[in-house]
Amino acid sequence: MSNQCIHIQFPDGQQQAFTKGVTLTDIAQAIRPELRKKAVAGCVNGTIIDLTRPIMEDAQITLYDASSKEGIEVIRHSTAHLLAQAFKRLYPHAQFGVGPVIENGFYYDIDIADTLTPSDLQQIEKKMKQIVQENIPIHRREVSREAAKQLFAHDALKLELLEAIPANELVTIYEQGEFYDLCRGPHVPSTGKLQHFKLMHVSGAYWRGDSNNQMLQRIYGVAFATKEELHNHFVFLEEAEKRNHRKLGKELSLFMFSEEAPGMPFYLANGQILRNELESYLRHLQAKYDYREVRTPLMMNQRLWEQSGHWDHYKDNMYFTQVDDQSFALKPMNCPGHMLIFKNVLHSYRDLPIRMAEFGQVHRHEFSGALNGLLRVRTFCQDDAHIFATPKQIEDEIALALKIIDEVYSVFGFAYTIELSTRPDDYMGDLALWDQAEAALENVLNNLGIAYTINAGDGAFYGPKIDIHIKDAIQRSHQCATVQLDFQLPEKFDLTYINEHNERVRPVVIHRAVFGSIDRFLGILIEHFGGAFPTWLAPQQVQVIGVAEAHQGYAKQVVEALQQAQIRVQLDGRPEKLGKKIREAQLQKIPYIIVIGDREVANQSVSVRKHGQQASIEKSLMQLLEGITAEVQQKSL
Amino acid sequence: MSNQCIHIQFPDGQQQAFTKGVTLTDIAQAIRPELRKKAVAGCVNGTIIDLTRPIMEDAQITLYDASSKEGIEVIRHSTAHLLAQAFKRLYPHAQFGVGPVIENGFYYDIDIADTLTPSDLQQIEKKMKQIVQENIPIHRREVSREAAKQLFAHDALKLELLEAIPANELVTIYEQGEFYDLCRGPHVPSTGKLQHFKLMHVSGAYWRGDSNNQMLQRIYGVAFATKEELHNHFVFLEEAEKRNHRKLGKELSLFMFSEEAPGMPFYLANGQILRNELESYLRHLQAKYDYREVRTPLMMNQRLWEQSGHWDHYKDNMYFTQVDDQSFALKPMNCPGHMLIFKNVLHSYRDLPIRMAEFGQVHRHEFSGALNGLLRVRTFCQDDAHIFATPKQIEDEIALALKIIDEVYSVFGFAYTIELSTRPDDYMGDLALWDQAEAALENVLNNLGIAYTINAGDGAFYGPKIDIHIKDAIQRSHQCATVQLDFQLPEKFDLTYINEHNERVRPVVIHRAVFGSIDRFLGILIEHFGGAFPTWLAPQQVQVIGVAEAHQGYAKQVVEALQQAQIRVQLDGRPEKLGKKIREAQLQKIPYIIVIGDREVANQSVSVRKHGQQASIEKSLMQLLEGITAEVQQKSL
Repeated sequence: MSNQCIHIQFPDGQQQAFTKGVTLTDIAQAIRPELRKKAVAGCVNGTIIDLTRPIMEDAQITLYDASSKEGIEVIRHSTAHLLAQAFKRLYPHAQFGVGPVIENGFYYDIDIADTLTPSDLQQIEKKMKQIVQENIPIHRREVSREAAKQLFAHDALKLELLEAIPANELVTIYEQGEFYDLCRGPHVPSTGKLQHFKLMHVSGAYWRGDSNNQMLQRIYGVAFATKEELHNHFVFLEEAEKRNHRKLGKELSLFMFSEEAPGMPFYLANGQILRNELESYLRHLQAKYDYREVRTPLMMNQRLWEQSGHWDHYKDNMYFTQVDDQSFALKPMNCPGHMLIFKNVLHSYRDLPIRMAEFGQVHRHEFSGALNGLLRVRTFCQDDAHIFATPKQIEDEIALALKIIDEVYSVFGFAYTIELSTRPDDYMGDLALWDQAEAALENVLNNLGIAYTINAGDGAFYGPKIDIHIKDAIQRSHQCATVQLDFQLPEKFDLTYINEHNERVRPVVIHRAVFGSIDRFLGILIEHFGGAFPTWLAPQQVQVIGVAEAHQGYAKQVVEALQQAQIRVQLDGRPEKLGKKIREAQLQKIPYIIVIGDREVANQSVSVRKHGQQASIEKSLMQLLEGITAEVQQKSL
Repeated sequence: MSNQCIHIQFPDGQQQAFTKGVTLTDIAQAIRPELRKKAVAGCVNGTIIDLTRPIMEDAQITLYDASSKEGIEVIRHSTAHLLAQAFKRLYPHAQFGVGPVIENGFYYDIDIADTLTPSDLQQIEKKMKQIVQENIPIHRREVSREAAKQLFAHDALKLELLEAIPANELVTIYEQGEFYDLCRGPHVPSTGKLQHFKLMHVSGAYWRGDSNNQMLQRIYGVAFATKEELHNHFVFLEEAEKRNHRKLGKELSLFMFSEEAPGMPFYLANGQILRNELESYLRHLQAKYDYREVRTPLMMNQRLWEQSGHWDHYKDNMYFTQVDDQSFALKPMNCPGHMLIFKNVLHSYRDLPIRMAEFGQVHRHEFSGALNGLLRVRTFCQDDAHIFATPKQIEDEIALALKIIDEVYSVFGFAYTIELSTRPDDYMGDLALWDQAEAALENVLNNLGIAYTINAGDGAFYGPKIDIHIKDAIQRSHQCATVQLDFQLPEKFDLTYINEHNERVRPVVIHRAVFGSIDRFLGILIEHFGGAFPTWLAPQQVQVIGVAEAHQGYAKQVVEALQQAQIRVQLDGRPEKLGKKIREAQLQKIPYIIVIGDREVANQSVSVRKHGQQASIEKSLMQLLEGITAEVQQKSL
């Protein structure tokens, strides 16, 4: 073999010899021209690189097209550059911050005096498409720091980014026609590869995320592998917007926000019914499994938070107040209060496990820009529980927690996946204990026959954990429930129990939440059901409408019968047209609309129309009552 | 009639002539020697005076013996002087602060280096009884300020009190033997009149109640008209101590306190069941009467509290924190949050009344010395409601609120009295509106045929109110529920609705609470029931005990059947003696103890012993279930 020749190994294990300096483009073309056309980047010996970089040694390679995770990332990154190039053609004085890939697309931060409008975005997009037509080749260039400084001499933001590149790292420039950018790459080989993108909106963003810095304008865009995927994304966005919990929260009078308490929800009567139903459901379920509910104060002395470690790890997100000249913190978590309750009396091994639950209102500071309806708030109610157990009880307790989570999620029709997060690098405590704990969690999952993925190194510093990710009705993933082992809190609070040999030993603490945050879970539920809640949850379950004045008497009897059966019902007795009344009840997504006219009065029956169905069915009052009552009791979907 | 003669008119209207300068003692003796012996003070032309003061003009008089409110007050005051005289005989260097009358007795603040112990109190009491035996006459003496200063030259505290007497007021000294005190009086004529007293305890007290001043020692005593009353008081104290909610709170594991959050209760599992039952009961009752429950944030911007007036009137009792560099207050009341909800949408007269309820956790600072278990805390949950009504709806809404209060209180067996508090001197708002509101409240009470007393001038500055005082099982009075009209908040928050004539007009706000504070109400309930709660409230309703190992299987079946019926039941399966198990269940005041032995297994029955009853009755399991279920549903006492 001459030294001009290298061996290339493909993902299927086959090998082939190429001339040294060959590129991925050359290789793709050699295999199949079709492959070259589809490829956007590739991987050489574990590093993702441009298709056009010469390969100088034996290598294992993979080619990526737009359908791969790696390929679409490169496309999104290159589309950000495309945006910058188009922008600079339109606004030659613009300077650029960073332009990274995000979920579904990319953004680019831009420093420009003009305030950008939606119609500006249209112009920019048009210019981007023109550059795609030009199919400009994209080149990578390694440069010295000096050369880079010269290139960006008039670009303060890029100079700052350049300064931030570690001294031992190569500086690279990507060029496409008249445009160049400081960038690690990789990128597609030419602008013609960028097809299915759209600019979405523009918002303000502080340079480097620091509110002391200047405000830049951030243009967001999306990019997909195919026209169809791009289209589906807009269908998804439309569906998500229909289900937007902030919008539905207003329309269905569920909750409101006020400038007097940003990030802190006010629950209106309808929303409070939902909350109460959720809380009451879990309260009774937990009681069945011998969880004991407690209630701890909302603020406690700062020294307690120092003891628990929250002061060290979390104080920037906590709110403080003065009580009798001492600093008190509003609780961001319920754990320390539960530790105090455990310590209140001496426990024997016979008392364990103790399953201590609380619907605890916590306060955690969030930046105002991060707030998002019920999904990101500054105060929320956790359905928190701490299980104090002997080491031998860990498996049974984890299994019980998972059983409850499964029971709750199936009530809402949530599919879910499970992740086991193991020892992180900065773990605390005894290695043997960690091994035992991780084995216990794996055993439980294996014994229950539950599929899970392992997130190696992603556990909490105090112990391994199981996170549960639910999928909502439009396939979005949310992490809500969690089951975490904790060896640290028992140490920090010097928790003990008396074992069978009359010795004081440490219990294990298991943190557990099912909803996580009732507020956030409610936000997810609103979007999951699109506001059309199952009957047991619905703030109003039945709307009764009399066709004319003559039917009001019987309509009232129906309402009273429903009220007697604890069904949440209202009578729409307004002097409005029947059609309007039905339409309004439908918009309120009330599960049952009952219309009372001549026939119903004559038959002493009711005409029932279920939400989402066109036809209405005549039933006896008794049939109606039994049907709804059964549905509520069974929590039918 | 000579000018040496005056006319004395008695309470029954009869008149009699006496020589000018006659004393009440002389008059009493003249009427009936028995009367003189019993009299301790009297009233002359509306002023309560010593029996020994000469009467110089025509007068209407009343004589007071120990059985009258006025008489016992004089006795208690004189007993305080008796204490001081006895103390000074034992500790000649002692100096004295104030020695006023309080409920059931008196105290005296004393400046002395020694720390007083209970056995010191016994010695002092012995010395007091000796002085009673000496029957030393008590004299009143009017003195100049100069003379008073000389008398108290070595007594810094009394000199300070002397300084505080207004210049236009007479300075008087009361002397009994070697002892004299600066005092307005009146007093009994001699120490022999003081018979039925007891020193209770000693505690620290700042001079003039100011924590910047020196700490004095405060000796508390009680004094009554008769030996029997004194005895009854100790019986009452013993009963109250048995029912003490702090003691029962520990024994029954209801709640705890921690130094990490003084004045902020931690509810243990048993206490939380009580809270949940109370909350759930009222929630359902309120829903029945179309109250709509909401939930508002625990903290809101300071400017909101400035708008509501809480900042001006209440800021010293509020806790503050910083959010985004703005001052936020933890809510001491729920009103402002409810005003924001009302303002959230435009209301028509058709929407009114709106009955907005919240179980709102509030924080109010109290001095640590004032804290008292659940009865005086720094955070509590109010069962708050605000009713937004048209002026015409006031009467109906007040009537409904009173109806709910009556329904709730009768469930607990509380008798209650009603007070109507009217316009205070510092009232705000329109006089005509006040007249209308007071008339409305009176009308409601009269129309409902409810007896009430009027507390003239004791209304809130923002409107008149109805306070409800309950009497607990040992006849103590507690103010819990309140119904208050408010004309000010609608002004301050510029609340409006659109009336029938399409005009924006102000609604009236009615504040209403039934429990008041759930925490305090729970404290009262614990003492009212002495921890033996009615079955529907009891944290644990049934204890099942198997006599021997052989009975455990059937015992478990019984437990499961009870659990199925939603009854809170535990099995005591410990290998302990039956007697011990029964005793412990009785101490826990569990409503039903069920014992399972051979006979019960054979008969498939249960032996039931109700709390407080000696006999146990054999029943079928079905009878037991039906009995308890009915009792819980009916909330039987």
